[in-house]
Amino acid sequence: MAATSLQDVMDEAGNIVDVLRNSKIGMYVYPVVAPEFSNWRVEQEAWRKTAVLFDQSHHMDEVIVEGPQAAEFLAHHGINSFSNFGLNRAKHYVPVTPAGHVIGDHIIFREREDKFVLVGRAPTSNWLMFAAAYGNWNVRLRHDPRSPSRPEGERVLREHYRFQIQGPDATAIFEKMNGGPIPDIKFFHVDWINIGSKKVQALRHGMSGAPGLEVWGPYKDKDYIHSTIMQAARDAGVNLVQCGARAYSTNTLESGWIPSPLPGIYSGDGMMADYRQWLGADMYEAAGAIGGSFVSDNIEDYYVNPFELGYDFYIGWKKDDFIGKAALEKIKAEGAKRKKVTFEWNRDDILKVIASSFEQGTPYKWIDFPQPNYASSSADMVCDDSGKMVGMSMFNGYSFNERCMLSLGVVNNDVQVGDVLTLKWGEPETTGKTSTEVHKQAEIRVRVSPTPYSSEARENYADSWRTKS
Amino acid sequence: MAATSLQDVMDEAGNIVDVLRNSKIGMYVYPVVAPEFSNWRVEQEAWRKTAVLFDQSHHMDEVIVEGPQAAEFLAHHGINSFSNFGLNRAKHYVPVTPAGHVIGDHIIFREREDKFVLVGRAPTSNWLMFAAAYGNWNVRLRHDPRSPSRPEGERVLREHYRFQIQGPDATAIFEKMNGGPIPDIKFFHVDWINIGSKKVQALRHGMSGAPGLEVWGPYKDKDYIHSTIMQAARDAGVNLVQCGARAYSTNTLESGWIPSPLPGIYSGDGMMADYRQWLGADMYEAAGAIGGSFVSDNIEDYYVNPFELGYDFYIGWKKDDFIGKAALEKIKAEGAKRKKVTFEWNRDDILKVIASSFEQGTPYKWIDFPQPNYASSSADMVCDDSGKMVGMSMFNGYSFNERCMLSLGVVNNDVQVGDVLTLKWGEPETTGKTSTEVHKQAEIRVRVSPTPYSSEARENYADSWRTKS
Repeated sequence: MAATSLQDVMDEAGNIVDVLRNSKIGMYVYPVVAPEFSNWRVEQEAWRKTAVLFDQSHHMDEVIVEGPQAAEFLAHHGINSFSNFGLNRAKHYVPVTPAGHVIGDHIIFREREDKFVLVGRAPTSNWLMFAAAYGNWNVRLRHDPRSPSRPEGERVLREHYRFQIQGPDATAIFEKMNGGPIPDIKFFHVDWINIGSKKVQALRHGMSGAPGLEVWGPYKDKDYIHSTIMQAARDAGVNLVQCGARAYSTNTLESGWIPSPLPGIYSGDGMMADYRQWLGADMYEAAGAIGGSFVSDNIEDYYVNPFELGYDFYIGWKKDDFIGKAALEKIKAEGAKRKKVTFEWNRDDILKVIASSFEQGTPYKWIDFPQPNYASSSADMVCDDSGKMVGMSMFNGYSFNERCMLSLGVVNNDVQVGDVLTLKWGEPETTGKTSTEVHKQAEIRVRVSPTPYSSEARENYADSWRTKS
Repeated sequence: MAATSLQDVMDEAGNIVDVLRNSKIGMYVYPVVAPEFSNWRVEQEAWRKTAVLFDQSHHMDEVIVEGPQAAEFLAHHGINSFSNFGLNRAKHYVPVTPAGHVIGDHIIFREREDKFVLVGRAPTSNWLMFAAAYGNWNVRLRHDPRSPSRPEGERVLREHYRFQIQGPDATAIFEKMNGGPIPDIKFFHVDWINIGSKKVQALRHGMSGAPGLEVWGPYKDKDYIHSTIMQAARDAGVNLVQCGARAYSTNTLESGWIPSPLPGIYSGDGMMADYRQWLGADMYEAAGAIGGSFVSDNIEDYYVNPFELGYDFYIGWKKDDFIGKAALEKIKAEGAKRKKVTFEWNRDDILKVIASSFEQGTPYKWIDFPQPNYASSSADMVCDDSGKMVGMSMFNGYSFNERCMLSLGVVNNDVQVGDVLTLKWGEPETTGKTSTEVHKQAEIRVRVSPTPYSSEARENYADSWRTKS
């Protein structure tokens, strides 16, 4: 019988690592949006130098959680403190397993006392949908999954459009479209602004390391809002550059968020075993791909915890209980063993890899610019001089602003900023993944660097989680 | 008053070269189709090693020419011989100006005595629509323009779907979907085959240098045909790889067709002057972009003639008259001054260019893989040791099959295969084009090579125009 649940898939496969490393789902793309509007170098430059427009309507799931117990439900399934979660605020919401492993993360907005909007990758959506079905919660959930990766000319509709405008010149655009100064919205707070004849919600954000606003509303308004924003930029004399799919995901390299931790849901019993029965065989957790040089028989070796990602400072320790609390208390007591860093790749080693694609024979794994990731979750070995693995690289990309290939990941605590390590690039054997050509492995020297790497992000995000890692 | 025609644009600008070199239209993309299905290296490899599926439903204009004078009308506006143009044949149709400059090219199919279907870039469509309006022809034209470059989730509809299947393993797929051996269709001939429950027209073709079939039919059948083809490949045990937008245009590097000559319509009086009044200011000829290091005040320096592109052997000299005949006779008598070649780029010089994007300051023009073109028409200077321009590079791309960056273009007759010349990469000044970042120029050594470059194409296309250049 064909597998219908993740657990079926795991039972058939013997080892889920093999399934995920051989997934045929293809690259994890930024869907629907054009690859480039101008070109990816200029689009990257815009968020640093002028202003950029991100169309975020398509690449994320949205979950709406409503009902008398909405806040209680979410507080129980996420690590975050909810005591300071007033109306019109947003948080970076992180659920973990009972064992304390990160499942994923969403941006969560509180629209009403009893209504929250969550936006992010599938693992958190799926976990919350399961949790509502599994527990006894007086909540209503609505799920709008991310858009298809390859619509091929078919129409794509969403619940909401979602735009983000960022960069040093962004404020002039906001004032022009609002018809006057905009409210002084604090970081990760929401207020209402005017865009033409529409009143829209705006979140103060800054993904790429420059301040900005994220606005959203009914999808039917998308074209109107888009053209009003573009006109406001022209009226303000600002070069607002639309960002395409190729540049988009690289903004996180400069700001330091890791979008793609493998959800730690493949092990554990009790609720976790039930979750694996609940998860469909066609869902992200069963169908997604692991790419990279790190191969372990033990799926848990791919997991991370909130301390390692720098999320520990917003754990709601005062909450009576939440899933994973005991495990996190134990990690806290013992001290986390790894920390988040940026890896700065050695130029000459990159050129060596590229040069191999100009020779006959099996080349090194191609480094695609600006986004070389080839799976839903990446895991590349980072080793010290003795060849011992001391870190895991988890998200790669080239930054034209930094003139550098960077990756985000975790290293053992004794690794220091400035250390030069070796990243193994490419997989040890040919897998079933369609996203990679047959290749051999390369060694790329990487210098351990702070997160966020961008000095702008470091300076402007003093109150953000991104600087706390 | 705003310019409404190409002529208005030219009158305002003084020099149309400046307009086209500063166009803000962006890259000339392969629209609607996903950037990658698997990855562009594997997609390129498929047309050489197994089989590839091209979705050509979106990137070209289609023009249907019908009516009592359809054949006469087309014969008068193209250089091709029509004497051997029976039913169910196709040709590579090339119109030129009265001065003998290439306007563009289409693939033309004869469906009935009085009905032709033409597929290709806008310049030929526009020219034919003008010609029908300008002359006194008893013809009916229907024009289905190419799909929008950035549909952003809106639905895109066309008159016809159009798929091409190619590669050494393609025949097994055809036989499986046809339910038995397919007719022995000669190159550039059309016959009918079965795809599931549909009878469809199939053209024997081979764009990427490997034999194959192009099939088309009503757009509403697209999903059915697509899934039937994919199923037939699975049933036949063939790894049929879908080709995405990033790899698609590079197939021509191996087979040797230059898709993007600048239409030679910006000069000449009489009919040409009337054409420039007819052409809208928003059409390809007025809004498109010229990119590259070759800058001349004289737009005619960007033109090519059919001899230079290797199309001379199918000129219909026996036709009483056709537009451009006298000019072509003169060129023939004098001998063409240039010929088509492939330029094989030097690896070390490419690496030098890439290395500059890992340093602060102004880099060399980024070479995007696999398709570095950044305009509707490319014109890069190719010079000899003394710095004298002896050729023009017109279409670029990296071939994973050849492990080489290649470009197609024309060189003076005295240049020989094996000569090493220097290609100037990047523009001498910053233009208004959105498709390129600020950059400096690089010198890239190129070795003059035959066209087609691919040995497979050379061997398998003995009866095609591609080998005659």
